[in-house]
Amino acid sequence: MDTIFFVKAAAFFGAALAMGIGSIGPALGQGFIGMKACENIGKYPESSGNIRTTMMIAMGLVETSAIYALLIAGALIWIGKTT
Amino acid sequence: MDTIFFVKAAAFFGAALAMGIGSIGPALGQGFIGMKACENIGKYPESSGNIRTTMMIAMGLVETSAIYALLIAGALIWIGKTT
Amino acid sequence: MDTIFFVKAAAFFGAALAMGIGSIGPALGQGFIGMKACENIGKYPESSGNIRTTMMIAMGLVETSAIYALLIAGALIWIGKTT
Amino acid sequence: MDTIFFVKAAAFFGAALAMGIGSIGPALGQGFIGMKACENIGKYPESSGNIRTTMMIAMGLVETSAIYALLIAGALIWIGKTT
Amino acid sequence: MDTIFFVKAAAFFGAALAMGIGSIGPALGQGFIGMKACENIGKYPESSGNIRTTMMIAMGLVETSAIYALLIAGALIWIGKTT
Amino acid sequence: MDTIFFVKAAAFFGAALAMGIGSIGPALGQGFIGMKACENIGKYPESSGNIRTTMMIAMGLVETSAIYALLIAGALIWIGKTT
Amino acid sequence: MDTIFFVKAAAFFGAALAMGIGSIGPALGQGFIGMKACENIGKYPESSGNIRTTMMIAMGLVETSAIYALLIAGALIWIGKTT
Amino acid sequence: MDTIFFVKAAAFFGAALAMGIGSIGPALGQGFIGMKACENIGKYPESSGNIRTTMMIAMGLVETSAIYALLIAGALIWIGKTT
Amino acid sequence: MDTIFFVKAAAFFGAALAMGIGSIGPALGQGFIGMKACENIGKYPESSGNIRTTMMIAMGLVETSAIYALLIAGALIWIGKTT
Amino acid sequence: MDTIFFVKAAAFFGAALAMGIGSIGPALGQGFIGMKACENIGKYPESSGNIRTTMMIAMGLVETSAIYALLIAGALIWIGKTT
Amino acid sequence: MDTIFFVKAAAFFGAALAMGIGSIGPALGQGFIGMKACENIGKYPESSGNIRTTMMIAMGLVETSAIYALLIAGALIWIGKTT
Amino acid sequence: MDTIFFVKAAAFFGAALAMGIGSIGPALGQGFIGMKACENIGKYPESSGNIRTTMMIAMGLVETSAIYALLIAGALIWIGKTT
Amino acid sequence: MDTIFFVKAAAFFGAALAMGIGSIGPALGQGFIGMKACENIGKYPESSGNIRTTMMIAMGLVETSAIYALLIAGALIWIGKTT
Amino acid sequence: MDTIFFVKAAAFFGAALAMGIGSIGPALGQGFIGMKACENIGKYPESSGNIRTTMMIAMGLVETSAIYALLIAGALIWIGKTT
Amino acid sequence: MDTIFFVKAAAFFGAALAMGIGSIGPALGQGFIGMKACENIGKYPESSGNIRTTMMIAMGLVETSAIYALLIAGALIWIGKTT
Repeated sequence: MDTIFFVKAAAFFGAALAMGIGSIGPALGQGFIGMKACENIGKYPESSGNIRTTMMIAMGLVETSAIYALLIAGALIWIGKTT
Repeated sequence: MDTIFFVKAAAFFGAALAMGIGSIGPALGQGFIGMKACENIGKYPESSGNIRTTMMIAMGLVETSAIYALLIAGALIWIGKTT
Repeated sequence: MDTIFFVKAAAFFGAALAMGIGSIGPALGQGFIGMKACENIGKYPESSGNIRTTMMIAMGLVETSAIYALLIAGALIWIGKTT
Repeated sequence: MDTIFFVKAAAFFGAALAMGIGSIGPALGQGFIGMKACENIGKYPESSGNIRTTMMIAMGLVETSAIYALLIAGALIWIGKTT
Repeated sequence: MDTIFFVKAAAFFGAALAMGIGSIGPALGQGFIGMKACENIGKYPESSGNIRTTMMIAMGLVETSAIYALLIAGALIWIGKTT
Repeated sequence: MDTIFFVKAAAFFGAALAMGIGSIGPALGQGFIGMKACENIGKYPESSGNIRTTMMIAMGLVETSAIYALLIAGALIWIGKTT
Repeated sequence: MDTIFFVKAAAFFGAALAMGIGSIGPALGQGFIGMKACENIGKYPESSGNIRTTMMIAMGLVETSAIYALLIAGALIWIGKTT
Repeated sequence: MDTIFFVKAAAFFGAALAMGIGSIGPALGQGFIGMKACENIGKYPESSGNIRTTMMIAMGLVETSAIYALLIAGALIWIGKTT
Repeated sequence: MDTIFFVKAAAFFGAALAMGIGSIGPALGQGFIGMKACENIGKYPESSGNIRTTMMIAMGLVETSAIYALLIAGALIWIGKTT
Repeated sequence: MDTIFFVKAAAFFGAALAMGIGSIGPALGQGFIGMKACENIGKYPESSGNIRTTMMIAMGLVETSAIYALLIAGALIWIGKTT
Repeated sequence: MDTIFFVKAAAFFGAALAMGIGSIGPALGQGFIGMKACENIGKYPESSGNIRTTMMIAMGLVETSAIYALLIAGALIWIGKTT
Repeated sequence: MDTIFFVKAAAFFGAALAMGIGSIGPALGQGFIGMKACENIGKYPESSGNIRTTMMIAMGLVETSAIYALLIAGALIWIGKTT
Repeated sequence: MDTIFFVKAAAFFGAALAMGIGSIGPALGQGFIGMKACENIGKYPESSGNIRTTMMIAMGLVETSAIYALLIAGALIWIGKTT
Repeated sequence: MDTIFFVKAAAFFGAALAMGIGSIGPALGQGFIGMKACENIGKYPESSGNIRTTMMIAMGLVETSAIYALLIAGALIWIGKTT
Repeated sequence: MDTIFFVKAAAFFGAALAMGIGSIGPALGQGFIGMKACENIGKYPESSGNIRTTMMIAMGLVETSAIYALLIAGALIWIGKTT
């Protein structure tokens, strides 16, 4: 019953790293998109709806990376719990 | 009763790293968005409402990454408590 | 029955790293694409459909890298579970 | 009574790292926002109220990341105290 | 039967690193290509087909690096499974 | 009475790291704000009061991150003292 | 029969690192080439064939580095298998 | 009487790190402020008093981060002395 | 017969690192060359043959570094095999 | 009498790190200030006295960070001597 | 006969590092030279022979660093073989 | 008489690090100052005396950081000698 | 006869590092020089001889650093051989 | 007679690091100064004497940092010899 | 006769690091100087002698840092030989 806890520890620590490191990229990526969207909605108010739609599609696609990380982290926590 | 505490330590330390590292990305991402929003609200005061709405949508989407990290960190703390 | 858990731990921790590190690149890459797409849809509203299509094709191709990482991470978790 | 202190040490050290690393991102993010706000209030004095409001909303949203880190750090200290 | 598991662990952890690190480069590279493609399709709508074709050829060539990493990672997982 | 000192050491070293690392971000963030404020007060002397007020609000918000780090560091020192 | 597995582990882990690290450079290099090719095909549509040919020659030469890494990784996996 | 010295060593080494790392941020931040102040006093001599006052307020606020680090370092040295 | 395998492991792992790290530089260097070549063939179509020849000479010289790394890696693998 | 020397070693090594790392920030910060001061005294010779005064005030404030580090380093050396 | 293999391992691993790290610099340096040569042959076709000669002399001098690294790596492999 | 030498080693190694790391900052800072001074003495020869005086004052202040590091390093060497 | 091989290993591994790391700087430095020389020979063909001479003198002086590293590496290999 | 050699090793290795790391800063700093001096002597030939004098004073002051590092390294070698 | 070889190993490895790291700075610094010298000899051919002289003085001063590192490395090798 000793080593099973080592697996648990690895799973919990891994989940933390996966989500911690895995949130840097998406957040920065979305930040770049939002930054330019804010800038260009001000510059070209006539196409603000268009830009905002594009921003959301782009952000949604970037979000997938964060969600993948969340999935892996969640699966690892669930595994760590039930092993 | 020895190794269970090792799991606890891994969960607590992991939670700390997940939230610590996981707050760099979202905060910088939101900083980039807010930076450009402030700049462009000044430049194009006529579309300030539009920009602020976009800024908030964008920031809300970036915030999700931080919330994912918070979720994982919280789950790890709860696990570390109850294991 | 001791060392089999070491393999499990390696697989779980590896899955976490694969997805954590593996989400930085795609998210940043998609962020660069979305950033420019938002900018140019505002500048050239007449070709917004064209740009958005290109953005999605490009993002879909970038997404593959994230999906590869997800695949490997998922395979490692499944292996860690069933070994 | 030996290993319980190891958990405590992990919780205390984790809390320190969570808050230490977790204050870099929000502070830099808020710095970027404040930097641009100061610049544009000077450039466009007629919309200074508007910019300052936007700055505060943006900073408040960035602040959440720091507060999440504080929460996790505080929870870890409380856990380290009471375990 | 002890050390064979050490090989397995090395293969699984290696697969994770190969795919995790190996997805940064291709994703960023494709991001740079897609970024410029979106920009220039907007600027020169008359040669959008031409640009999109070039973009896809370029991205396909960049993709090969990611696929090589996937190959190695997959081979390592298969080896880790069957050894 | 052996391990309790290990907890103390972790708390003291953690406090040092929390404050040491935690002062980089706020100081740089405030530096960016102050830099731009000095620049723009010179450029637009007519709105110097306005800029200085904004600078102080912004700096006060950035200061919170440093104060959070100070709080955690102080709490850890107090805990290390009284445990 | 103990140490032979250590060699295997080194070969497998090395193969993973060789391909993981070895895909960063070629992918970024090809990304730079493709980025400029897309930009200039839009700017100078009359020489698009010329640019695309050059792009492919250049990318093919960059690809060699990735292929060298793949070769070494494949050789190491084959060695790890057959040793 | 063995382990108490380990706590002392941690406190002394921690104090050194806290002040060492903790002086990078404030010094750079103040450097940025002073850099711009010198530049703008030259450009706009008529508002030199105004700029210098702002510079000092800003630097005073940045200084707080250094002082927090000094406080923590001092407290740790005092603790290391008296424990 | 124990330590001979340690030499083998060092040779195999070294070969992997030599090729992995050794492919970053040449690939980036060739990427810079190809990037500029694509740009200038578009700008100055009349000297495209001249540029392409220069590009290939330059790339061939950069390639030598990658080939040196391949040589060393191959020699190490051969040594690891035959020792 | 064994462990007391460990404390001494920690204090001496800590003092060295505190001053070593602690001199990077102030020196660079003062360098930025001096750089701009030299530039602007040349550009605006009529306000050279004004700039030089500002430069010295700013440098004096930056110097405090270096002096704090010196204080901590000195205290640690004195402690290491007298413990 | 035990430790002689340790020397061998050090020599082989060192050779790998020497060539791996030692190919980054020369390849990048040659890349910079080739990049500018391609650019300027296009801009000034009348002095293309002159530029190409200069490029080759410069690249040949940069190549020496790579050759030195190759020499050391080769010598180490030969030593590792014959020791 | 065993552990006293450990203190000596720590003091000597610390002195080396303090001076080694501690010379990067001041040298770069003085380099920035000297760089700008040389540039502006050329541009504004009429105020060359003024600039050179400012440069020396600024460099003298930057030098203090290097001297602090030298002091600490010297003190540590003297301590290591006499302990 | 055991430890003499440890010295040998240190000398061989050191020689590898000295040459590996020591070739980055000179190669990049020569790359910068060659880059500018190529550019300016194109721009100012009338002074191409003058530039090429200067380039070679400069490169020769940069080469000395690489040669120093080669000398040290060679000396270490010779020492490792003959000790 | 065992541990005295440990002190010697620390002193020798420290001397190497002090000089190795300590030569980066001064050399880069002097490089920046020399770079600008060369540029401006060309631009303003009438004040070349003035610039060259300033360059030498500045370089002499930067050199002090390198000499401090040399002093410490020399002292450590002498100590390592005579201890 | 055991530990004396440890000192030798430290001296040899230290010499390698001192020269390896110590050649980065001077080579880059000289590269910056040579880069600008080549550029400006082309731009201002009338003052080419003047620039070349300045370049050599500057490079000679930068060279001193490399020579200091060589001195220390040589001294360490000589010490390692004769100890």
